Amino acid sequence: MTVAAYRSLWRDQTDHGRDQRRGGFSRHGFDEADLTLREWFAAEAQSRGLDVEVDRNGNLWAWLDVAGGARSSAVVTGSHLDSVPGGGAFDGPLGVVSALLALDTLRAKGFRPRRPLAVVVFAEEEGGRFGVPCLGSRLLTGAIAPDVARRLTDAEGASLDTALRHAGLDPDGLGADPELLARVGVFVELHVEQGRAMVDLDAPVALASTILAHGRWRLTFHGEGNHAGSTALDDRRDPMLPAAHTVAAARRVAGKVTGARATVGRLVPNPGGTNVIASTVDLWLDARAPSTSDTRAVVDDLLAHAEQVAHAEGCRLTVREESFGDRVVFDGVLRSRLAGLLGGAPVLPTGAGHDAGILAAHVPAAMLFVRNPTGVSHAPAEFAEEDDCVAGVAALATVLENLAS
Amino acid sequence: MTVAAYRSLWRDQTDHGRDQRRGGFSRHGFDEADLTLREWFAAEAQSRGLDVEVDRNGNLWAWLDVAGGARSSAVVTGSHLDSVPGGGAFDGPLGVVSALLALDTLRAKGFRPRRPLAVVVFAEEEGGRFGVPCLGSRLLTGAIAPDVARRLTDAEGASLDTALRHAGLDPDGLGADPELLARVGVFVELHVEQGRAMVDLDAPVALASTILAHGRWRLTFHGEGNHAGSTALDDRRDPMLPAAHTVAAARRVAGKVTGARATVGRLVPNPGGTNVIASTVDLWLDARAPSTSDTRAVVDDLLAHAEQVAHAEGCRLTVREESFGDRVVFDGVLRSRLAGLLGGAPVLPTGAGHDAGILAAHVPAAMLFVRNPTGVSHAPAEFAEEDDCVAGVAALATVLENLAS
Repeated sequence: MTVAAYRSLWRDQTDHGRDQRRGGFSRHGFDEADLTLREWFAAEAQSRGLDVEVDRNGNLWAWLDVAGGARSSAVVTGSHLDSVPGGGAFDGPLGVVSALLALDTLRAKGFRPRRPLAVVVFAEEEGGRFGVPCLGSRLLTGAIAPDVARRLTDAEGASLDTALRHAGLDPDGLGADPELLARVGVFVELHVEQGRAMVDLDAPVALASTILAHGRWRLTFHGEGNHAGSTALDDRRDPMLPAAHTVAAARRVAGKVTGARATVGRLVPNPGGTNVIASTVDLWLDARAPSTSDTRAVVDDLLAHAEQVAHAEGCRLTVREESFGDRVVFDGVLRSRLAGLLGGAPVLPTGAGHDAGILAAHVPAAMLFVRNPTGVSHAPAEFAEEDDCVAGVAALATVLENLAS
Repeated sequence: MTVAAYRSLWRDQTDHGRDQRRGGFSRHGFDEADLTLREWFAAEAQSRGLDVEVDRNGNLWAWLDVAGGARSSAVVTGSHLDSVPGGGAFDGPLGVVSALLALDTLRAKGFRPRRPLAVVVFAEEEGGRFGVPCLGSRLLTGAIAPDVARRLTDAEGASLDTALRHAGLDPDGLGADPELLARVGVFVELHVEQGRAMVDLDAPVALASTILAHGRWRLTFHGEGNHAGSTALDDRRDPMLPAAHTVAAARRVAGKVTGARATVGRLVPNPGGTNVIASTVDLWLDARAPSTSDTRAVVDDLLAHAEQVAHAEGCRLTVREESFGDRVVFDGVLRSRLAGLLGGAPVLPTGAGHDAGILAAHVPAAMLFVRNPTGVSHAPAEFAEEDDCVAGVAALATVLENLAS
């Protein structure tokens, strides 16, 4: 596979979902940019002779069947096409583009698989629109109830139910799909690295070992909206105060637990006027730690503090857990096999969640990482050199060939 | 004037600009709701035989001329029709509706003014769209340069220039209008009270003494956008941290100065994703104190703190003063005259800014307040009883009759 071939397919999809205001890309589950990209993927897959189907949960599957064979014990690869708001170009699309190019590579060398292959595009992996990350793979595996999912809403109040109908999909079909899942023999996701470890290791390609336990919590501080000029300080119940104290405490509390992270990247005061004391403040806490119990401990500690500072301001706190995922340890046997195939590629833990982490509870799963010279992710500075991306495609082709033989 | 007459005109304008998401009303300078209300006002004024003109700064004037007389030494009343986001129904519209009804009252009793009367609707008083409060009156009086105003942008990036053109107005006409200002002999603004003082005083109508010195500052904390899961705490430059510390410090710093207030009611992390460390955070500081020097001291103290916490997180801080107004002391002679006319109505200071405060630097100006039983303002709970509103109209009619005789 040449750099030119990589560049051409890569560039095709970068036309969609650019965010002029924030920079980078904003592509969220079933919005216009995402729907366009899904069409782009289906057309690319069909042009390669793959059979494209949409599963009951809005994930796209492109099948390379074995002549006369059933779709079972399939070797599946892929990632997602949606992004965080103002995200980088690589998180998601690199895995999808590389999957298609890896199949091209195998075809070019005349490889005849003994097991069916499939490229999957999981829906709403970032949860950038409906709040729950890995929504498509969670639905597929039954990790989220379809009733709960249908009622999820975006920032404009549109429900997933509505968004699916708008996309021509049937929300009544949502939910665990054990038949489809049973077809998957193994899942391998290629992804841009989201830190600088591979720069330091001087490795273009690596394998994942573990994913931090992680979750999202929506905290709403309820106070009393009032006039910013005429309301004396002592008369206020300003929810911005406990919200601010909670943001500061998140760093402090997470800092006490080795390897833990707690982040508030989204915070919305309502109504949001300069001369208005907010009536409510919504903030979203993203918390992660090496173990499930550590993550729970960080969040419990922080919520107790949030409750206390809310009370001190005469405010009320409500909390909703939007998602939670236990620590993931990727299949050790599979990982050793792939490391062998890839000449002893380094093995790294990651703090980022992935569809591969959701699938890992059901099928042997692995991840390949491609080096990111900036170390930045979820931001426009996210990057991978073309040569490294080509190396990633070659590594993925090697892995798929071995697994499907 | 009857309660029925008040109720009818009042209800007419409450059809426009309701905010289904936040509650209350969202009517911002030259948006669709505001443009509809401006048309409503013009039609109501014309139906009363008033001559409606739009001044060069987008303010509406409805003139009741003296037969054969020039428009000079006019007795002007009015307020504004825009709101804060999710604001109450009364802040602004009560002064406009009461002005029209006061003229009805005077006509019904056959009053023949010796001086021209006018009802004015000032544009974008709240600064809810373009950030600068009292934008229309500031432009009229030259308190903001037209070049600066034209370049103001709303949250979607649309400029005032664009918004004015969309409204069919000519942005090249913006700027101080001393000719128009010279026509104003006296200005009286009726407004809903924005605290509970009149409840405690058992007074339906009161007069304003002073307005706190106040201003708005936009603070932008610049950090490094990154992944909330894969970025270790020590590697972060997260602008939410100094922003949160600044919100907390605002309360603490203002608390050290008697009568001072500092509020952050608007805060926007960019890009605003749950699993994304923000790259920048914009927050708007509203600060007020009894004297200009106290207000400056609060802000200087807070900005120094913000600079320090930004630096500690490896972030950079930029600050823009969006508006500032010195303390206003309303004309004592005029106030005494009105207090006499109104049977010794109580006199109150206010922490809220008003167009009357901007005009007070140029013409004798006064304000009438109408009791607000909730004490809440800039929120849906803002309220005034119909009987008190009718008393407000009667008081305003008495004042206008006296001033125009």
